[in-house]
Amino acid sequence: MSSVFGERIKMTIFGESHGPAIGLVIDGLPAGFELDMEAIDLEMARRAPGRNELSTARKEKDTYVIESGFFLGKTTGMPLCVLIANSDQHSKDYSLLKNVMRPGHGDYTGRIKYNGFNDYRGGGSFSGRLTAPLVFMGAVAKQFLATKGIIIGAHIASIAGIADKAFDPMGEKVEGLKVLSEKAFPVLDDVAGEAMIAAIMSAKSHKDSVGGTIECMAIGIPEGLGEPYFDSVESRLSHLLFSVPAVKALEFGQGFALTNMRGSEANDSLYMEEDKVRSKTNNNGGVLGGITNGMPVLFKVGIKPTPSIALPQATVDIATKSDTVLEIAGRHDPCIVQRAVPVIEAVTAWTILDLLLAANRSL
Amino acid sequence: MSSVFGERIKMTIFGESHGPAIGLVIDGLPAGFELDMEAIDLEMARRAPGRNELSTARKEKDTYVIESGFFLGKTTGMPLCVLIANSDQHSKDYSLLKNVMRPGHGDYTGRIKYNGFNDYRGGGSFSGRLTAPLVFMGAVAKQFLATKGIIIGAHIASIAGIADKAFDPMGEKVEGLKVLSEKAFPVLDDVAGEAMIAAIMSAKSHKDSVGGTIECMAIGIPEGLGEPYFDSVESRLSHLLFSVPAVKALEFGQGFALTNMRGSEANDSLYMEEDKVRSKTNNNGGVLGGITNGMPVLFKVGIKPTPSIALPQATVDIATKSDTVLEIAGRHDPCIVQRAVPVIEAVTAWTILDLLLAANRSL
Amino acid sequence: MSSVFGERIKMTIFGESHGPAIGLVIDGLPAGFELDMEAIDLEMARRAPGRNELSTARKEKDTYVIESGFFLGKTTGMPLCVLIANSDQHSKDYSLLKNVMRPGHGDYTGRIKYNGFNDYRGGGSFSGRLTAPLVFMGAVAKQFLATKGIIIGAHIASIAGIADKAFDPMGEKVEGLKVLSEKAFPVLDDVAGEAMIAAIMSAKSHKDSVGGTIECMAIGIPEGLGEPYFDSVESRLSHLLFSVPAVKALEFGQGFALTNMRGSEANDSLYMEEDKVRSKTNNNGGVLGGITNGMPVLFKVGIKPTPSIALPQATVDIATKSDTVLEIAGRHDPCIVQRAVPVIEAVTAWTILDLLLAANRSL
Amino acid sequence: MSSVFGERIKMTIFGESHGPAIGLVIDGLPAGFELDMEAIDLEMARRAPGRNELSTARKEKDTYVIESGFFLGKTTGMPLCVLIANSDQHSKDYSLLKNVMRPGHGDYTGRIKYNGFNDYRGGGSFSGRLTAPLVFMGAVAKQFLATKGIIIGAHIASIAGIADKAFDPMGEKVEGLKVLSEKAFPVLDDVAGEAMIAAIMSAKSHKDSVGGTIECMAIGIPEGLGEPYFDSVESRLSHLLFSVPAVKALEFGQGFALTNMRGSEANDSLYMEEDKVRSKTNNNGGVLGGITNGMPVLFKVGIKPTPSIALPQATVDIATKSDTVLEIAGRHDPCIVQRAVPVIEAVTAWTILDLLLAANRSL
Repeated sequence: MSSVFGERIKMTIFGESHGPAIGLVIDGLPAGFELDMEAIDLEMARRAPGRNELSTARKEKDTYVIESGFFLGKTTGMPLCVLIANSDQHSKDYSLLKNVMRPGHGDYTGRIKYNGFNDYRGGGSFSGRLTAPLVFMGAVAKQFLATKGIIIGAHIASIAGIADKAFDPMGEKVEGLKVLSEKAFPVLDDVAGEAMIAAIMSAKSHKDSVGGTIECMAIGIPEGLGEPYFDSVESRLSHLLFSVPAVKALEFGQGFALTNMRGSEANDSLYMEEDKVRSKTNNNGGVLGGITNGMPVLFKVGIKPTPSIALPQATVDIATKSDTVLEIAGRHDPCIVQRAVPVIEAVTAWTILDLLLAANRSL
Repeated sequence: MSSVFGERIKMTIFGESHGPAIGLVIDGLPAGFELDMEAIDLEMARRAPGRNELSTARKEKDTYVIESGFFLGKTTGMPLCVLIANSDQHSKDYSLLKNVMRPGHGDYTGRIKYNGFNDYRGGGSFSGRLTAPLVFMGAVAKQFLATKGIIIGAHIASIAGIADKAFDPMGEKVEGLKVLSEKAFPVLDDVAGEAMIAAIMSAKSHKDSVGGTIECMAIGIPEGLGEPYFDSVESRLSHLLFSVPAVKALEFGQGFALTNMRGSEANDSLYMEEDKVRSKTNNNGGVLGGITNGMPVLFKVGIKPTPSIALPQATVDIATKSDTVLEIAGRHDPCIVQRAVPVIEAVTAWTILDLLLAANRSL
Repeated sequence: MSSVFGERIKMTIFGESHGPAIGLVIDGLPAGFELDMEAIDLEMARRAPGRNELSTARKEKDTYVIESGFFLGKTTGMPLCVLIANSDQHSKDYSLLKNVMRPGHGDYTGRIKYNGFNDYRGGGSFSGRLTAPLVFMGAVAKQFLATKGIIIGAHIASIAGIADKAFDPMGEKVEGLKVLSEKAFPVLDDVAGEAMIAAIMSAKSHKDSVGGTIECMAIGIPEGLGEPYFDSVESRLSHLLFSVPAVKALEFGQGFALTNMRGSEANDSLYMEEDKVRSKTNNNGGVLGGITNGMPVLFKVGIKPTPSIALPQATVDIATKSDTVLEIAGRHDPCIVQRAVPVIEAVTAWTILDLLLAANRSL
Repeated sequence: MSSVFGERIKMTIFGESHGPAIGLVIDGLPAGFELDMEAIDLEMARRAPGRNELSTARKEKDTYVIESGFFLGKTTGMPLCVLIANSDQHSKDYSLLKNVMRPGHGDYTGRIKYNGFNDYRGGGSFSGRLTAPLVFMGAVAKQFLATKGIIIGAHIASIAGIADKAFDPMGEKVEGLKVLSEKAFPVLDDVAGEAMIAAIMSAKSHKDSVGGTIECMAIGIPEGLGEPYFDSVESRLSHLLFSVPAVKALEFGQGFALTNMRGSEANDSLYMEEDKVRSKTNNNGGVLGGITNGMPVLFKVGIKPTPSIALPQATVDIATKSDTVLEIAGRHDPCIVQRAVPVIEAVTAWTILDLLLAANRSL
């Protein structure tokens, strides 16, 4: 597992779903930054399981301990290590799954890659539980970004084909993004939200699950982040977004819809507003030539339905090398899209912070 | 510009559209590998401009010189540097564009990022011309992969909303992929292809451009490439795919369509075929938990319409800080999707080769 | 602080001397390797303080907890995180040192670099305490290397100018290296060792400290590790060796003495021994052109005297911006050379393991 | 061969002694920097062969062509590629050396590592010829550093045991370093220099070679460069210094002599000079805790005698697997120390520039 990522701020994540702890080390944070612990707690709570009937009943408070890099309420400039103990492990739930591969999960690929030595309990390192450290990282990144006027927000754009209102590509208001971040089920259109929740509950009652899409926006982004080719903003964001379990699709700006437009329609025209260069539209999602153009960075990710379902599924027993039928008994989310929202925001915040630090090349 | 990428095989690209040369350095190729130069030439020709009326009239033979790392017909194990001279530069075509920003291009973002010192001629390093070294790299990677039975192929999946037949997600035949690679306009359904060409010619006649999608498949992929989180196969592929100019969207397997499925439908069931674990479907595009599962790796990218169009466009003159109208007079592709096909294959081949080398952790 | 290092196996260290804990994350260990915990404990004990009157009285058992990457006694292939709690902190000892800079330490440079936000207690992250995770890493690496017949050993080559016998550059015996690793004061010549200990005790009684040199050898090294230029074995080893606090000098093979030889003397002549190419001498320390030649890798590092001394020292108070005199009252090592021996071995073992994994480029 | 190095500015070197060309790509240079080409030429000339009877008669003008990243006399911010053609190759001189391994060279290790596929002519990529791109890189770095008042200088500290005067560890004058850089044989004490030249000529007349040491100093260094542990200034400098062929030893400040001092002698005492913290001595070579303290960075490297000598040497023929005697007939340097001086300066300049850019963590 490659657990290290980043250019100016490196993060190293570690842990397995049912091991002693999960956590991360953040290397490269500027010294002397006062962390708002309440704001971190709020972000952690957004992702945590057990909040309502829509998600797994696993009760993890996701209580974290900062082991290093933090002194007298401020970052020291040294690596900041956060440890999150696994308290509610229920390991016996999973012992039967040692050899029976759950379809749609990393069980089989992990077994092959690690020759059967990976910790199979609860998916081990493949577990979505490892997104908790990512949310911590994102909560820290958001605080740095806020000092530069950069705000990240996201909403559920669809669940099971039921669509929310779209973000205004020219930019949402700060207040609107704040309201979203406080919603347990973050949608712009609460009526659509109710329909989505109904779809989730229907899937749950059928022992099944649903997927959806998340639209994310970063506003207040300065021009000039990212670089052509291998450090394009799209490249860097996509790298981390596709690291989030269950993300299978991604489009920037108008994305796939752009492929049906003509150039005259797709190109974002420019004009002067006093001394400032402005863009009349934002079809390109705030990035041209791999570099931010000052418009909101806008993208949508597709999240597949939770692979863990209670319905019987055809699969194999790897020990006996035979076909079998699996009924997963444990606690599972009928939909993880709502819990993925803060995770998507988090990796976005972290990426933009890293790009921001990298963009400064003054001696 | 971050021009270096890769874990076990690092590539460094360089060059500007109208500078003396473009090129790349490949570091980490195993020694003693005999390169098939004809195969490389064929790949370079697939991407080269001026092949027909569908693409720019710029005549670049893309003749390359290997400056190092190659001795007596074989790789030496040392960095292999390839230089491609810019022969047909027509720099005067672009001098008027120094201050007038082309919408949809990296002109404005590059100008801001590099404080006006970037080489603006023909888009400088932002130019699609830098995909020529990528195709060289891919041609080399394909030869390595072929020794392991891995074949990469791609086709135009749509142009201007006109769709080609889709790949069989369970795997195309080697022969079919080979036929595609020899087509000037690589589609599975030539009737659809004719309609696409007509759409391109129509856009051209209207001084406009069109975009499209490319579907790419890698067959013969072993199980166990990639890693959970930051080295997931999707992460690594997406990083390079979004480095290719004009790519704005990407989905693996059923991608966005997965988000409308239920888990019971989306999960790829497993079964035994003699001693082998098989998958009944390939909705996940050959990757689970970030790791290949032995099914074909399958994805689709969205390519926006060529931003260079001859129609008048509203934009700004950055020197005079005033609004203006731009009519681009030079040679341009009304559609770059067909030329992007070998580029998408190339970065895929390179990524898989790098993952393959990385997967070997034996002492 | 850059806390991440390595190519195929990345280690991330973290922690401060008087924070809650120190530790490391090891990413890239092959899965399924059974760790000999007793062997790890022995290595940790070699470095731990408080063993005798030669070292600080700080009592740290250096008890570690493996938080991840280890399941049923074997590595899982996932990041292995080790946490070592700081139990015997005595923070009040150091509170007076917040503003008074200890000469020879990183107090002043750390204060400047981190704008006064670094954890100054006990030197914070600059503390030699962070070598404990390195020793853990080395203990793991040694176990992997042993399976390939590679053994690392080191001895105190001098203290305060009193020299031990030198290693035979053509290679020590495995048994001899094993005996050394079991000695509390690892020298080849115990008579010289007694004189060294006397010199240390004399310095201690004068409230002063002494330095010394450590000679290290790796035997059983295969030919072909390392690469010319930026991954030369000397480059990779030196990078980590100079990361160890107090190391100020390094020479490979005959080192500085080579500079006084003529080429005819310095060159290691080759000859055939049956089918094997052999070297008559080992002046180059087992590395030519940056690559191992199969001879023992041999080098010597210079360790400066412990900067913490009880004698009054002229220094500055950074808060009052005035000259002052400092008498350090706490617990300190009059000599750290003997405790540095396992640290030098550890970073050597880790580097060679990483080079060994990197050298495998087969598909 | 790992040809890529650097954090904020990455350099990629390539080439073989007798291939078409050698060169490098520099990625990350700030845009808009005007390069003084004459200054670059002067640095290249300092390293170039054929200047006098002390060095090889190989006549290489080391003429370079900038292929990218440079537009209208200034850096563009894009990768700058430099190509240096190999003009005076004399490949036939080396054809006999295909199978006969030159002692002290990378011939045998390269042959083993690359399975005999490396370009053996003139040592291929192992050749000191690849230091030409390093000197180009250093010449560029020096120009950036000069804008911050940082000057790098070096002198021959000894040849064949004949010592030059030492640098004043508290800092040399800018003018003195400038004078040194203009000397064909850069020593502080020209009488010692004459003796050194005599020693070189004597070795030459005996068909032998000599080695020596180089002392290097960087003045004007700000406080706060580098980081504890893996990015210590010593780690970063040593990594590149040991990448320079023939470097086998390195010491910072008083280096090995420190190991014989007591702490009270070795520690650099601090005092206030008006508002500034000063150091009374510079035994630590300007680096404490891995971070610069504002004193001159000072170190000495040991260069082994040129391995290519005309005297008969015992070695092996790898094809026939038999012992043989080699008399190297070609053109060789009886001493490379004087030509290594600008190389040592170059990698120092580059490292400090990279550390300087890395030290800036402001958003």
